[in-house]
Amino acid sequence: MATPEQQKFATQIDANQQALIARLAEAVAIPSVSGDARYRKACFDMADWLLASLTKLGAKGELRPLGKQNLEGQQIELPPVILADYGNDPKKKTILVYGHYDVQPALKSDGWEHEPFKLTFDEKSGRMYGRGSTDDKGPILGWINVIEAHQQVGVDLPVNLKICFEGMEESGSVGLDDLVEKEKDAFFKGIDAICISDNYWLGTKKPCLTHGLRGIQYFKLAINGPGADLHSGVFGGVVHEPMTDLFAIMSKLVTPQGKILIPGINELVAPLTDEEKKRYDVMEFQISDIDEATGSQTAISDEKQQVLMGRMRYPSLSLHGIEGAFSEPGTKTVIPSRVVGKFSVRLVPDMTPEKVVEVVEKYINEEWKKLGSKNTMRLDAEPGGKPWLADPNHYNYRAASKATETVYGVKPDLTREGGSIPVSLTFSEILGKNLLLLPMGRSNDGAHSINEKLDISNYIKGTQLLGLYLHEVANAA
Amino acid sequence: MATPEQQKFATQIDANQQALIARLAEAVAIPSVSGDARYRKACFDMADWLLASLTKLGAKGELRPLGKQNLEGQQIELPPVILADYGNDPKKKTILVYGHYDVQPALKSDGWEHEPFKLTFDEKSGRMYGRGSTDDKGPILGWINVIEAHQQVGVDLPVNLKICFEGMEESGSVGLDDLVEKEKDAFFKGIDAICISDNYWLGTKKPCLTHGLRGIQYFKLAINGPGADLHSGVFGGVVHEPMTDLFAIMSKLVTPQGKILIPGINELVAPLTDEEKKRYDVMEFQISDIDEATGSQTAISDEKQQVLMGRMRYPSLSLHGIEGAFSEPGTKTVIPSRVVGKFSVRLVPDMTPEKVVEVVEKYINEEWKKLGSKNTMRLDAEPGGKPWLADPNHYNYRAASKATETVYGVKPDLTREGGSIPVSLTFSEILGKNLLLLPMGRSNDGAHSINEKLDISNYIKGTQLLGLYLHEVANAA
Repeated sequence: MATPEQQKFATQIDANQQALIARLAEAVAIPSVSGDARYRKACFDMADWLLASLTKLGAKGELRPLGKQNLEGQQIELPPVILADYGNDPKKKTILVYGHYDVQPALKSDGWEHEPFKLTFDEKSGRMYGRGSTDDKGPILGWINVIEAHQQVGVDLPVNLKICFEGMEESGSVGLDDLVEKEKDAFFKGIDAICISDNYWLGTKKPCLTHGLRGIQYFKLAINGPGADLHSGVFGGVVHEPMTDLFAIMSKLVTPQGKILIPGINELVAPLTDEEKKRYDVMEFQISDIDEATGSQTAISDEKQQVLMGRMRYPSLSLHGIEGAFSEPGTKTVIPSRVVGKFSVRLVPDMTPEKVVEVVEKYINEEWKKLGSKNTMRLDAEPGGKPWLADPNHYNYRAASKATETVYGVKPDLTREGGSIPVSLTFSEILGKNLLLLPMGRSNDGAHSINEKLDISNYIKGTQLLGLYLHEVANAA
Repeated sequence: MATPEQQKFATQIDANQQALIARLAEAVAIPSVSGDARYRKACFDMADWLLASLTKLGAKGELRPLGKQNLEGQQIELPPVILADYGNDPKKKTILVYGHYDVQPALKSDGWEHEPFKLTFDEKSGRMYGRGSTDDKGPILGWINVIEAHQQVGVDLPVNLKICFEGMEESGSVGLDDLVEKEKDAFFKGIDAICISDNYWLGTKKPCLTHGLRGIQYFKLAINGPGADLHSGVFGGVVHEPMTDLFAIMSKLVTPQGKILIPGINELVAPLTDEEKKRYDVMEFQISDIDEATGSQTAISDEKQQVLMGRMRYPSLSLHGIEGAFSEPGTKTVIPSRVVGKFSVRLVPDMTPEKVVEVVEKYINEEWKKLGSKNTMRLDAEPGGKPWLADPNHYNYRAASKATETVYGVKPDLTREGGSIPVSLTFSEILGKNLLLLPMGRSNDGAHSINEKLDISNYIKGTQLLGLYLHEVANAA
């Protein structure tokens, strides 16, 4: 399937494996933890290192400062965003690639088997352990590896690249939205499609393309009663208890089978099409994968399709907790005077935060009136996040699918994810171009956990995939 | 109504008011906080001071050591129990009086207007502020004042007194049950009736006698699901969530109107008799008293009788909180993997912890099965406490009622309380004698709160009441 040029590139990646691994080891050794002020210098070091790598390959880039943030009581400079151009041939397509160079915190004492900031090999399993190996240093180095290998074998990169690597993804992407908005008609002008490699295969065996993410609407339901916490001996049976009211309302939101009970909410969900339905039949997935991931046998259904759709294409409602109630171990005979129940709804098209807030408010107000309590109730909706869904029939996806078949010999699963990657929505909405999530790592990489790893095969084949994707997208239409 | 001897005693109390107040000031100045190891020496000082006061008046007493306890990681000696005899005339009745000399913690920085361990007077209101003033140093000094005044006016105390003052009441009365059991046929032998002055009037105007306390049965309902907390984006709609199950069960225990929904539980409650019903009609109480006490308008009913019975003679069920769920301010999109709901039932005759556990277990097991959840459920019942109820037609109560009419010119309310005073049950059950709760202070004394106070009138008239009660009980049959 591969053209001779593609083949030359892929062969070079295989041949150069040791150097590519050494590059990853160098990156992992810089502890660019964005959430801890003590590592802020390492974030800047990491940005410098990346910009130098790109510049050395002929990219034209710069570090864009984002101003200051307040972290642990200090005003400190935000890690910069790297914006770089590689190629500006008007005859070629221009692809925006995004990744992040910051990582989650990691200490050996958290339970890591090896030093987290030293890339460590397990020969037997072919795995490389280290913080950031899969999230997201492996993937961003993938793009650099692609550029380098093309130069090494004298093959012209068939697209112009616009590179955006941020250093605050693990800490809320502070400042990125503003930068994208500001650079919409400057740096980001003229892009044709977007590719982000910052998620994972659905399982451990079959690659996937991801074209959807759920949104979220978080609620706080406050019940106010007595002026202070009361003794349940003296006041039990005497007053309307806020906890009783809260349980009465929150128990009416969702069933133990996961069915949302809020009238009108399920009607907001776009109907399942036949095309979609078929995707779930072929996905490489078993109920035992859920059991393994959760360390339990608590899947909502025995049907893999239903479980997958429960995660990917239907809304869910989770009860997270209560603020103001007794939450310690042991016993306490308190009547809490003010409690705030927390719950959230994961959103899918065509739900919007606004519509969901509307039906939830209406329902809770009605249910509240039925209680006949003398306490007072207040529902607050946090700022919501819309669901994101890209057209998987766009040439961007067809190109990625074809490249995957070339590298892995299998048609990738077309998945959606249950959580959010806010930058996907930012790019899609502000730039208005098709966005593709093209993962490099596997579901069991442990991105935010101890012993984060990237399989060597995923790093090497994943780099080949990124390169071949650029070839395919260059020609696709 | 008073006999000349009673009159002489009462007049002496009035005449000696300044000295009695000075005695209380001396006791309050000893910070005998039992719950804080740093004050343990003060507890011993307080015991020494009391024993010396009793011995000076001719009582024969001793400090009974209770062994050690572990407090804040240290093994320290428990405050002793004072056991003392005053009189042993076989022709007289023997009355056991109990009180406690330890107090709740108090720091000026908690919000006290004055130094908590310095008795401070407010001339205008006639109140004495200080930690322990009403709970329970005022009442225990009342007994000492009674003995002293009788000696001062040359009137023979008409009963033998057995005095039991403990120093751990605010910290769970550790060791007391064992001592009572051990001394049942020794020190405690031969008593005819028991009087404890360690509770409060129902309101602020009318004295009361208290003949009942509710018991308690505390439950922990654990739902186990996934092996670890999960991300609600990735797993919402995929697994059975323990929180959903917990809310489903706990919302079925009690209504917002306080009606307990557990089948069979209300059938355990002894029926309301006409005699009882009438007591609630005459009790000095208004709904506004509840509003004032709770700082809200959340009373379960507008009928004073119903509210009073809700506290005193019917069970109640309160939901206290959840362990394992998100309980902080802010937002967190977690699916808690294991949650433990805490709730308790306040018990009244003829409920017992055993019977309540039985019906609660049965109901929750049935409701659990209906949920169809793959999570697992476990209900644990904590050690329960029985309700306590004394016969208010016993001569012990008639004597106290008559003494109250003499001192206050009003027939006291006959009340029950919603909480527990475990020592009441201990004495009643082990010694098998009628026990009377004869309060000195008012409902607004703030026993465990800041600015604890005792009205001078309650201290003086309360001391007269304790003395006249002994005269009445001496002759009653």
